[in-house]
Amino acid sequence: MSIDTRLWSNKIRKLTPYVAGEQPKAEDLCKLNTNENPFAPSPKAVAAMQAVLLEDGQVLRLYPEPESDELCRVLADYHGLRREQVFVGNGSDEILAFIFACFFTKERPLLMPDVSYSFYPVYAQTFGVDVHTIALKDDFSIDLDDYRIPCGGVILPNPNAPTGILLPIENIRKLASEHPSSVIVIDEAYIDYADEVKSASAISLIDEFDNLIVTQTFSKSRSLAGLRVGAAFANPNLITALSIYKNSFNSYPLDRVAQAGAVASILDDAYFEQKRQEVIALRGDLVESLKGLGFEVLPSAANFLFAKPSHDTLSTKEIFDALRASKVIVRHWDKPRIKDHLRITVGTAEQNARLIATLKEIL
Amino acid sequence: MSIDTRLWSNKIRKLTPYVAGEQPKAEDLCKLNTNENPFAPSPKAVAAMQAVLLEDGQVLRLYPEPESDELCRVLADYHGLRREQVFVGNGSDEILAFIFACFFTKERPLLMPDVSYSFYPVYAQTFGVDVHTIALKDDFSIDLDDYRIPCGGVILPNPNAPTGILLPIENIRKLASEHPSSVIVIDEAYIDYADEVKSASAISLIDEFDNLIVTQTFSKSRSLAGLRVGAAFANPNLITALSIYKNSFNSYPLDRVAQAGAVASILDDAYFEQKRQEVIALRGDLVESLKGLGFEVLPSAANFLFAKPSHDTLSTKEIFDALRASKVIVRHWDKPRIKDHLRITVGTAEQNARLIATLKEIL
Repeated sequence: MSIDTRLWSNKIRKLTPYVAGEQPKAEDLCKLNTNENPFAPSPKAVAAMQAVLLEDGQVLRLYPEPESDELCRVLADYHGLRREQVFVGNGSDEILAFIFACFFTKERPLLMPDVSYSFYPVYAQTFGVDVHTIALKDDFSIDLDDYRIPCGGVILPNPNAPTGILLPIENIRKLASEHPSSVIVIDEAYIDYADEVKSASAISLIDEFDNLIVTQTFSKSRSLAGLRVGAAFANPNLITALSIYKNSFNSYPLDRVAQAGAVASILDDAYFEQKRQEVIALRGDLVESLKGLGFEVLPSAANFLFAKPSHDTLSTKEIFDALRASKVIVRHWDKPRIKDHLRITVGTAEQNARLIATLKEIL
Repeated sequence: MSIDTRLWSNKIRKLTPYVAGEQPKAEDLCKLNTNENPFAPSPKAVAAMQAVLLEDGQVLRLYPEPESDELCRVLADYHGLRREQVFVGNGSDEILAFIFACFFTKERPLLMPDVSYSFYPVYAQTFGVDVHTIALKDDFSIDLDDYRIPCGGVILPNPNAPTGILLPIENIRKLASEHPSSVIVIDEAYIDYADEVKSASAISLIDEFDNLIVTQTFSKSRSLAGLRVGAAFANPNLITALSIYKNSFNSYPLDRVAQAGAVASILDDAYFEQKRQEVIALRGDLVESLKGLGFEVLPSAANFLFAKPSHDTLSTKEIFDALRASKVIVRHWDKPRIKDHLRITVGTAEQNARLIATLKEIL
């Protein structure tokens, strides 16, 4: 069917949207393609969501608190920040969109790695931001010396996606100090899978730099991808801009159930730490199993691995397709530099065993 | 505290955000200020949301279906449309933002009433859209003859807010036919409170006009303001643009709980019709009571009344403040043309009686 774009604005005609990892509906899938947590969310988070539905769900007839104030306060306490250094949104994706709208322009280029979260260039299109991509090194690492050029901002995932490689905090400190007139965004969607998360996270630099924004999500380490909650941490001057944009766009992005579940998740730190450590242990086992099958595996501080098969008769794409035929879904991009790699989410012990068994059959 | 805007983009510096009706937290409030439904949502909707939380909330670890496909199908069936004529979003506010981004520009003015939903001019700022406001008549009605001028689009709530006045469907048909090269948006947040909703809604015109978008919300007649769900109905060419923008902004705006609750709400038509009729009956009673106190009340097809007290010693603002001091919260705008009116949400019989009793004490 051809689309009639006669009534569209010019800027929509030029947009190429982001393509999310698929959410297939078949039974008996081994779904290792979108970096979801293999474990259920905190039982206390589930109980808090159930509580919203008590008394005939009466409270749902009322609008939620528009600024998600309680959630912001709980996050501030958790990270040793002040309330006014915290912002929350409908997933960190929504917050990233707001960040592009608030801080980046077409006049000064935004720097980002060439291999990174593929939504960033889409946001740049959406908000008319000029982008300058910087190639990763041959070992897929980020060399911040390459970012020492005039720019309107920098955006990096840390750990990077889809590589999983963690950049040391000292490098981020240097980056922020070298660009005092540009906003530096550290997208920490996967930071909770760094062994030492407190010292790895750039949240510890928020008080030091007024140009730094750190984003995080409840979709990975908190098992709440189905709930849509993300957070940003920054100097109050930057948080104020995000709030102004939000309230010029959509007043109530977080529903009552999501706010309640997210608050209770943060307060249940024991469960969080236990499941975080379990995933880190499962990751270690999976690295060993993949190496045993001849894969080269990049060092990962995330809940996924970026791995290159050594097989010489099957291409990576063929292995990806064969896994898929056996209902084991991982992620593959048919793009330069990364087409020889698979991105594999760390699953349960059973899922990881099924992946390895299926790979043994294929290879 | 002064705000340092040094790192903000110019367009954020110029934004004046929307101010939502307050969500005060005090006990024993009679909250008639944000047009929420006095009744709980459908018990079937609550049960469907509870079901998402079963089995330890395991399913929440997975991303939701990004296009809310089941909800779109159920809405299409309900309204006698095809799936590709339906779009859903995080409240109709998010959809309205997308509509401004997709179809309106700074080159051709968007027409809207001068007294209307006050978020429209904010969206226009956010997306750099030129606006031309058209004065309501002295009786607060919209005269579509005033809209017969060259334009880039038209946006109208129907019934209008805060007046509650319904524009007949034939006038909307005429408007859409007179502007074939512009997108016409009919914001039907309150249409379910028209006595004959099926014949009042412009959804019946979707097959006839490729330039018409109708938006609706689950926040009012479906008692789900706390859940954040809205919908749009239009020709597939317009729906495609909204989908492209959404997927260039935030892939998963509706969480799993919201999708499940919204689907079940639509399927429970008996409950919907019963509560809709109850609110319409309560509205009739409230009109009589207010008229008995000397108020002039505009004819309302919504779940609120726009009413002007006749009192000559107290100003409307003073009455508003006195109500507030007694914990009865309604809405008042200190703006030309509407400063003599109060917007009063239709509450339960008890809430309405408390409002009337409090007014009797004040006046």
